[in-house]
Amino acid sequence: MPLKTVDEYLKSISELNPTVYVAGERVKNILEHPNLTPVINSVAKTYQLAQNPKYSDVMTAKSHITGERVNRFNHIPRSIEDLEKRMELAILTSQKIGSCSYRCPGCDALSALESVTYEMDKKLGTNYHARFINYLKYVQENDLACSGALTDPKGNRRLRPKEQEDPDLYVRVVEKGDDGIVVRGAKVNQSGSAAAHENIVIPGLTLREGEEEYAVAFAVPSNAKGLVHIMQETPEDAERRAAETPEDLGIPKYGVRETFIMVFDDVFVPWDRVFMCGEVAFTRELVLRFASNHRMSSAGCKVGFAESVIGATYAIAEYNGLAGAPNIRVELADMIRVQETVRACGLAAALKGWRAESGTYHPNHVLANVAKLASAYGFMEMLKDAIDISGGLTVTLPSLKNLRNPEVAGYLRKYLKGAAGVPPEHRIRMFKFLQTWVAGPHAPGAWHGGGSPMAQLITLYALTDFEGKKRQAMELAGIVEEGE
Amino acid sequence: MPLKTVDEYLKSISELNPTVYVAGERVKNILEHPNLTPVINSVAKTYQLAQNPKYSDVMTAKSHITGERVNRFNHIPRSIEDLEKRMELAILTSQKIGSCSYRCPGCDALSALESVTYEMDKKLGTNYHARFINYLKYVQENDLACSGALTDPKGNRRLRPKEQEDPDLYVRVVEKGDDGIVVRGAKVNQSGSAAAHENIVIPGLTLREGEEEYAVAFAVPSNAKGLVHIMQETPEDAERRAAETPEDLGIPKYGVRETFIMVFDDVFVPWDRVFMCGEVAFTRELVLRFASNHRMSSAGCKVGFAESVIGATYAIAEYNGLAGAPNIRVELADMIRVQETVRACGLAAALKGWRAESGTYHPNHVLANVAKLASAYGFMEMLKDAIDISGGLTVTLPSLKNLRNPEVAGYLRKYLKGAAGVPPEHRIRMFKFLQTWVAGPHAPGAWHGGGSPMAQLITLYALTDFEGKKRQAMELAGIVEEGE
Amino acid sequence: MPLKTVDEYLKSISELNPTVYVAGERVKNILEHPNLTPVINSVAKTYQLAQNPKYSDVMTAKSHITGERVNRFNHIPRSIEDLEKRMELAILTSQKIGSCSYRCPGCDALSALESVTYEMDKKLGTNYHARFINYLKYVQENDLACSGALTDPKGNRRLRPKEQEDPDLYVRVVEKGDDGIVVRGAKVNQSGSAAAHENIVIPGLTLREGEEEYAVAFAVPSNAKGLVHIMQETPEDAERRAAETPEDLGIPKYGVRETFIMVFDDVFVPWDRVFMCGEVAFTRELVLRFASNHRMSSAGCKVGFAESVIGATYAIAEYNGLAGAPNIRVELADMIRVQETVRACGLAAALKGWRAESGTYHPNHVLANVAKLASAYGFMEMLKDAIDISGGLTVTLPSLKNLRNPEVAGYLRKYLKGAAGVPPEHRIRMFKFLQTWVAGPHAPGAWHGGGSPMAQLITLYALTDFEGKKRQAMELAGIVEEGE
Amino acid sequence: MPLKTVDEYLKSISELNPTVYVAGERVKNILEHPNLTPVINSVAKTYQLAQNPKYSDVMTAKSHITGERVNRFNHIPRSIEDLEKRMELAILTSQKIGSCSYRCPGCDALSALESVTYEMDKKLGTNYHARFINYLKYVQENDLACSGALTDPKGNRRLRPKEQEDPDLYVRVVEKGDDGIVVRGAKVNQSGSAAAHENIVIPGLTLREGEEEYAVAFAVPSNAKGLVHIMQETPEDAERRAAETPEDLGIPKYGVRETFIMVFDDVFVPWDRVFMCGEVAFTRELVLRFASNHRMSSAGCKVGFAESVIGATYAIAEYNGLAGAPNIRVELADMIRVQETVRACGLAAALKGWRAESGTYHPNHVLANVAKLASAYGFMEMLKDAIDISGGLTVTLPSLKNLRNPEVAGYLRKYLKGAAGVPPEHRIRMFKFLQTWVAGPHAPGAWHGGGSPMAQLITLYALTDFEGKKRQAMELAGIVEEGE
Repeated sequence: MPLKTVDEYLKSISELNPTVYVAGERVKNILEHPNLTPVINSVAKTYQLAQNPKYSDVMTAKSHITGERVNRFNHIPRSIEDLEKRMELAILTSQKIGSCSYRCPGCDALSALESVTYEMDKKLGTNYHARFINYLKYVQENDLACSGALTDPKGNRRLRPKEQEDPDLYVRVVEKGDDGIVVRGAKVNQSGSAAAHENIVIPGLTLREGEEEYAVAFAVPSNAKGLVHIMQETPEDAERRAAETPEDLGIPKYGVRETFIMVFDDVFVPWDRVFMCGEVAFTRELVLRFASNHRMSSAGCKVGFAESVIGATYAIAEYNGLAGAPNIRVELADMIRVQETVRACGLAAALKGWRAESGTYHPNHVLANVAKLASAYGFMEMLKDAIDISGGLTVTLPSLKNLRNPEVAGYLRKYLKGAAGVPPEHRIRMFKFLQTWVAGPHAPGAWHGGGSPMAQLITLYALTDFEGKKRQAMELAGIVEEGE
Repeated sequence: MPLKTVDEYLKSISELNPTVYVAGERVKNILEHPNLTPVINSVAKTYQLAQNPKYSDVMTAKSHITGERVNRFNHIPRSIEDLEKRMELAILTSQKIGSCSYRCPGCDALSALESVTYEMDKKLGTNYHARFINYLKYVQENDLACSGALTDPKGNRRLRPKEQEDPDLYVRVVEKGDDGIVVRGAKVNQSGSAAAHENIVIPGLTLREGEEEYAVAFAVPSNAKGLVHIMQETPEDAERRAAETPEDLGIPKYGVRETFIMVFDDVFVPWDRVFMCGEVAFTRELVLRFASNHRMSSAGCKVGFAESVIGATYAIAEYNGLAGAPNIRVELADMIRVQETVRACGLAAALKGWRAESGTYHPNHVLANVAKLASAYGFMEMLKDAIDISGGLTVTLPSLKNLRNPEVAGYLRKYLKGAAGVPPEHRIRMFKFLQTWVAGPHAPGAWHGGGSPMAQLITLYALTDFEGKKRQAMELAGIVEEGE
Repeated sequence: MPLKTVDEYLKSISELNPTVYVAGERVKNILEHPNLTPVINSVAKTYQLAQNPKYSDVMTAKSHITGERVNRFNHIPRSIEDLEKRMELAILTSQKIGSCSYRCPGCDALSALESVTYEMDKKLGTNYHARFINYLKYVQENDLACSGALTDPKGNRRLRPKEQEDPDLYVRVVEKGDDGIVVRGAKVNQSGSAAAHENIVIPGLTLREGEEEYAVAFAVPSNAKGLVHIMQETPEDAERRAAETPEDLGIPKYGVRETFIMVFDDVFVPWDRVFMCGEVAFTRELVLRFASNHRMSSAGCKVGFAESVIGATYAIAEYNGLAGAPNIRVELADMIRVQETVRACGLAAALKGWRAESGTYHPNHVLANVAKLASAYGFMEMLKDAIDISGGLTVTLPSLKNLRNPEVAGYLRKYLKGAAGVPPEHRIRMFKFLQTWVAGPHAPGAWHGGGSPMAQLITLYALTDFEGKKRQAMELAGIVEEGE
Repeated sequence: MPLKTVDEYLKSISELNPTVYVAGERVKNILEHPNLTPVINSVAKTYQLAQNPKYSDVMTAKSHITGERVNRFNHIPRSIEDLEKRMELAILTSQKIGSCSYRCPGCDALSALESVTYEMDKKLGTNYHARFINYLKYVQENDLACSGALTDPKGNRRLRPKEQEDPDLYVRVVEKGDDGIVVRGAKVNQSGSAAAHENIVIPGLTLREGEEEYAVAFAVPSNAKGLVHIMQETPEDAERRAAETPEDLGIPKYGVRETFIMVFDDVFVPWDRVFMCGEVAFTRELVLRFASNHRMSSAGCKVGFAESVIGATYAIAEYNGLAGAPNIRVELADMIRVQETVRACGLAAALKGWRAESGTYHPNHVLANVAKLASAYGFMEMLKDAIDISGGLTVTLPSLKNLRNPEVAGYLRKYLKGAAGVPPEHRIRMFKFLQTWVAGPHAPGAWHGGGSPMAQLITLYALTDFEGKKRQAMELAGIVEEGE
């Protein structure tokens, strides 16, 4: 089967018709709801780009299972070059969309499962890997969009899953039968789950003996019975619902990143879609590998976002007559420093990747975590530069609707004029575009997406050989003999 | 006349009925428009607090003109203690409102004008001061709310006012007659202008010879003929307009800071409301004094805001079961460091204030600028701490409307539960409250309000005696003899 | 008795002849050892400045005990104005000396003891206060220089004093007799103890029941039997010992801050010099008050240091031909921001000080801690600016000795020339001066002096009413009713 | 010829006997002067490591000229793998030495010259490349250590070379003859020039028409007639000269980075050692390529340094009984973040390198500049963490000499004891080791080495396609049509 066209994607997702609630109301047609449109547009763009020969090297790959070209979001990296392309995939899509592609977590979960199921089977004699490969083949052959779900609601964060008042605060198996299992719980912060065909679900933490019911990984179609997607709501969402036309919005077509709470209200999963069920000993590796893949890709994502933020900031500096002013140049260069540092860290994570037993390549754990930290810290610094350069109008801009009312349109055109030759409309729209970045949900999103910085710091601490470094210091300090 | 009650304020502002456009539409009743309500509520709160004996020491002062107690926002500081109270006024009101009080710029413009008109008259033999005192008496006796307007649209920021393509990009006098003057232009970023009775207008930059037409200061009622207020529009504004009930919003009653573009479409101002007209030599002092007063008060404002941000972050840490975790304690303490550093700088600016010739006290220029910088830089750091502690749900929270739909309300209550004893509704609302701070317009607002940091750095550079410091270094380096 | 002259100070300190070890050798004459000279010079400067009518307002105060003018370092603040002057005293002396005055800890310990002994007596019926006042009178009447000692060696920092392998790792009473007590232990990081007449010793932590032996405060002359001062050694100290002439050093006369380990090898202290002995319940207040006094004064100290760093950086920018370059101006302004922020915090701590029961004034606890944090964090930022502006020669400069060798002196004069009109010698010396600040012990000194930042953060956390802030947030979020 | 042994290096450098001045005195025997010993030791270590089979992959490479294995510092990268190994070479040597290897600038200058001479010849028909290859063969076959010299004294930094009061403030050709040229001027900040056999000299800035005399690149032996090396002097140098034994120093064997001012007092250079003479049009590329190579290697250097700083900090945390404390763990993880970010940026610069026409590979310009910035900014952050964790004793430690005086040695051993099982001597030495890093010349060295951050920011600005980013923003903002 060839790669799906945009129309095929739209048709297929419309047919799925998952259960989605937005702002307290059940969505009738997922293709027509103003809040879901930008999510659909974003995923659709990943299909469109894959059709474009100019990008096929990044957007597609030859499947190691089927031998056919598949969308790279459904491809398992089988070489260092694949990892590098995975990073470039994240950069390219987030740059072209100016928002989330909604396909990274799914892709990263597939990679983690491919290698961990292999190792489980080898060690435990289970049959997860073959099952998973069959499923993956189905995904690749039908060119399906997958979301990935990891984060449980967690309740009281000091307590383990079973210690919670409600044992369902982490997704768990409530029933096992001959045909499959029944799962209950929820996953929060799920980017674009309703616009995916498939949802890949894995545990959100390393589990211990006695917590087997929580050690569950599986895949369900987004319209599975009992699965409810409840959409997030930011002011940007309310603004979009109320807009006369998307043209009045900062990012008309693609909006900002949208997530859902996925509720699993006793969802049945047949065995051929279950990839872990009780093997607590393997949850650490599954989470760690997902995390490293996703931290690398979330760094790539911010490199692409930076393209928009820097471009808009540069444009406004120019529109304000200030391009080339010494201090502005320094700040713009600092934004480039941030963007390129994140790119460098992500690339290094790919290029220093490692081969798992199944032949799948994963990013270097240390460098992937570093890439995420660079993106979280750097994104804030970059926004600060953008705020500083662009000035107060970025948040005090009047509604673009005024441009359609002749009583005030002239005032805006007259008084929001900038440097010569720049149409006031351009300046006004560019302010609105930048507003989305500097006064919206992106900063917290960049901070926590892919896991909070503390999670990365803890990982770095755990992966470091401090004794080796201490020994080196002792040698140079003259406390012990110099070794080799 | 006694201090106005809230009802009297509402009645009076409704009678004024200024010309306001919101989202492309003319506002019919300023008291009923959902976007104006929070602005009105905020100003009303300044009247309510002034009636409360508990706060009368901070909220009111004895006028040096009338001898009566007046709202401190209309009082001219006549002592160091007055300056300190001015700082506490900013803290108290922004803390109680959780948003802008909309009365600082007006207050700060009155203070600057009081002393500069005195000095102009003394030097030039003009009659501005008596005129101004009469006007001030009118404001105090009628307990009017004043906004203050400084920032011109500026167009191409590299060019002086007269070099612009359109000479109106800075407010200017286009006609002088026996009865008064006619002004044209616009002021941007005007906090709450439509909810004030009076708008005080001063130049936005130091002017030079040949630019006399731009050296104009005056006061107009907010419903002056030819004056149009065009409201800003952030996603928060659209969200509010579309909300079924303010309860679904982050800060139900007071919202976020709202500004207007004020367009002066050939507005006539009678001479008794003109306080500068052509005296370019005094614009530097007028702008500098306004800036120092306003930078101190905008620092106070952020101390009050910090109360909300810290309180919400602490509450969420507790709701998440994490209050007391070592790293969270360090971050909360860091937020306190920021809040108290800003408070300290503002207080120091007040306590090291100086007496102008007219007997009016102004904040110390250096320390007022430092206070603003501390608030701009610190606010960003504090938001970062808040984002880090509170987690991703702060931006991925579903709409509160879901709580009214029984099909999903139960899901949210079940899965957004936190630590024992905390009602899920509280947790959900607190996330929504914090969202307003960390994913909305406040960060850019804190950065640019009171002037961009670069403006403060330039002022600091200009006010510093670098030669004295160099001399000190030369003495200690042994290059020149040690002096006294 | 009048204030001591410099000569009287030198004579008196020479007569004391304390036991001092420097670099493994017993010092014969404290006035002649090259490493002690700058310490003596610094303390001497505090006597010289006190004699100068120009500074008498800051440097001296009227004793509330004797009614005579005393050096302010020996004065107990009895008003807000006194606290403010205390802050200015720290600024003035550190500015004039370009290093430590060595008298802050002593002064701060006296203030803390004055009020705490008063409260102890009132509560416990002890007789410490009268004893202390007698001692203070002796210090004031003889115009003695006092050091203050707080920091114990601490050993394993996870353990309480009695849990240590060696119980002497915190100073403790090993014997109590009719005439007095015998103390054993050590205090580390003691600035200038050997150049003081008197050493005031207090506990370094809040003690608990069962730890009475460690709850001891007392004063000893610096030549007490059994008291040994072991001097620190930085590369700067070795450089100074080896120098042909102090002119070759960065700060010829005053050097950098020097500390000592004070070893108490069973030192006898008569009862009239014992101000606490076993009262564990009062150790918290004693430490807290000392800390707040000292954190305010250590902030003042950094304001004075900043004068040197900024002056030197500005001079080098000028010598390099770069004064006025836009980016350099911004960085210099940023240094001023740091300096003035620290000044503001210290001033605010003074001006918001509080009156203890004895009538003594202490700085506001919260603001004093904030001042210390501002100085620690800010000092690093300021040094970074200085490094950036001044360039690599600040550390790669050849020895000034080369200027006395005709074979190479000409090369240095030819090639280290800067902007026109600047003698190369000035430029070279200024680089050497700045080297002391940016490549020496000052950064760690500023970080840890007055207690490590973590100590301040812990204090801030402990002093904050988080519940009040939470309540405020709940009101504004609409979770609870708006209160007054 | 095989790789030189350490003894052969020492012998050869001793025979060269360059003219060196340290602290105003002519050095008699370069192998015996205490300040030169650590520099010699460091370079010797690069020979020792190259002999060690364990490191031969990193330390040596097969020459593309001779086909023999040569020290990688003399190898020209001919592949991406070579570039990666170049980065690892910098990491390994700086880690093993704990200071500068003194061979990076020479190596980086050779790489830049190899490709630029090739392009010059191709364009201009000159004969520099063959000449250079002959010279390189000589260097490789004799396994010579090369330093590289770029930075001119610059005088008044606002002026071009010819505008200076003294035209010699930039190195220039003062005579051209049949046999060669005569050069005059100086180079500052030259790391280890006196311990190298050869000094490679290139221009320090992009030159313009009319400035041909300054466009000169050449190589001279370090004992060339008229060449004088004047050593820098930091307090660490004076300390070392005065030390009884290197054991008393922080880094006994290798010390801190040492630089020299190289004075060219009319030095004759034969034509076969001249690689550029007047070709101003090629100076930009020469400087840019040197800079990118050196910025990548100076990033590698800091990764190696980090090994020492982190190891020492971790050791002290452990010695203090604090290993594992939550906040300490976070700070240690942050140090790892810095180290690994810098490593990632350097690796990415290598792995995204580019092939010049001559077949030589250079690091990616953008990423190499980013790597240097990450190392400069990160090094400061890492030192701050180290200061915070290690505490005040790092700078207040007494001299190690005290341990040899029985009168006080016992006091130090008793009172500087830490956690159980740690010999006090170890703790004391480790403090001294860390002192070298946090209170010495390393911070400014890391900031300016490889060029000041402003130089990197300017490069980043110049290399960025802002118009492309602006176009991307315009598409997403809906201002122009979405392109491909």
